[in-house]
Amino acid sequence: MGKKDFHTCMMEEALLEAQKAFDEGEVPVGAVLTYEGHIIARGRNQMERLKDPSAHAELLCIRSGAQVIGDWRLLKTTLYTTLEPCLMCAGALLLARVSHVLYGAPDLRHGAHGSFINAFEKKHPTHSLRIEGGLLEGESADLMRKFFKQQRSRSETVDRSAL
Amino acid sequence: MGKKDFHTCMMEEALLEAQKAFDEGEVPVGAVLTYEGHIIARGRNQMERLKDPSAHAELLCIRSGAQVIGDWRLLKTTLYTTLEPCLMCAGALLLARVSHVLYGAPDLRHGAHGSFINAFEKKHPTHSLRIEGGLLEGESADLMRKFFKQQRSRSETVDRSAL
Repeated sequence: MGKKDFHTCMMEEALLEAQKAFDEGEVPVGAVLTYEGHIIARGRNQMERLKDPSAHAELLCIRSGAQVIGDWRLLKTTLYTTLEPCLMCAGALLLARVSHVLYGAPDLRHGAHGSFINAFEKKHPTHSLRIEGGLLEGESADLMRKFFKQQRSRSETVDRSAL
Repeated sequence: MGKKDFHTCMMEEALLEAQKAFDEGEVPVGAVLTYEGHIIARGRNQMERLKDPSAHAELLCIRSGAQVIGDWRLLKTTLYTTLEPCLMCAGALLLARVSHVLYGAPDLRHGAHGSFINAFEKKHPTHSLRIEGGLLEGESADLMRKFFKQQRSRSETVDRSAL
């Protein structure tokens, strides 16, 4: 299996996490963290369920990975996430010293890899990280669109039933 | 008690949290979150203890506050933190919709209110937040200096004992 194929397989795993979030009524974002070619942690968006503003897929995945490794430094790890990380998650990835980040779709409103702001442009004082987008972008974006379409149709139903 | 006095009292509470972090051998940063003039959550840096790269004072304080309120939206809350928030905490404060942030000392290496990057400069798509630094700046900075001085002298002792 080539290097590109491995990345694609890992992003498919992240998409499975995003689908779980979707099924739970959460904005469908998923992430997995790998170390030496193995998945050591998974995460999915759970903001509503956990009533926690920090419960983004990436942050939960990072926290879980740190427990597995037994250190807050996630050296030589790669994070796959279905959506461009936000400011908070970008900051956490830098703090945690994740080596490589691959994401699917851009997040035009909150993305911190250039969509809203670019948190990776300026040389960070303690860590440098490689970040690339567009891996299985279509699949990630489709899931997001499907989610927000469903949310809109639900709120329309509520509006009508209130008449 | 005037408005300024209340802010000072709250920052003193944040400093008590920072002192606890210091006593536990953590980088001494503390935070408190208030709602309608009352402290609803406290946090202190616990990165080493929890082995969690996200365990900054502000993030733990936000997460704790969300559990108290029962919602990830921390509307109409004020966060007091002894140090300028980093990128991750800046992102979390915006996501959590905290109204007002007051901090003590600047963080010249990681600060996201202009020291390293300015995360608050550009209009955020979902929230606007007021942020001000310099409240009990001297006390916060002194505690940080004392901590890093102690760390350096400890590592020198280790170096010498290895001779």
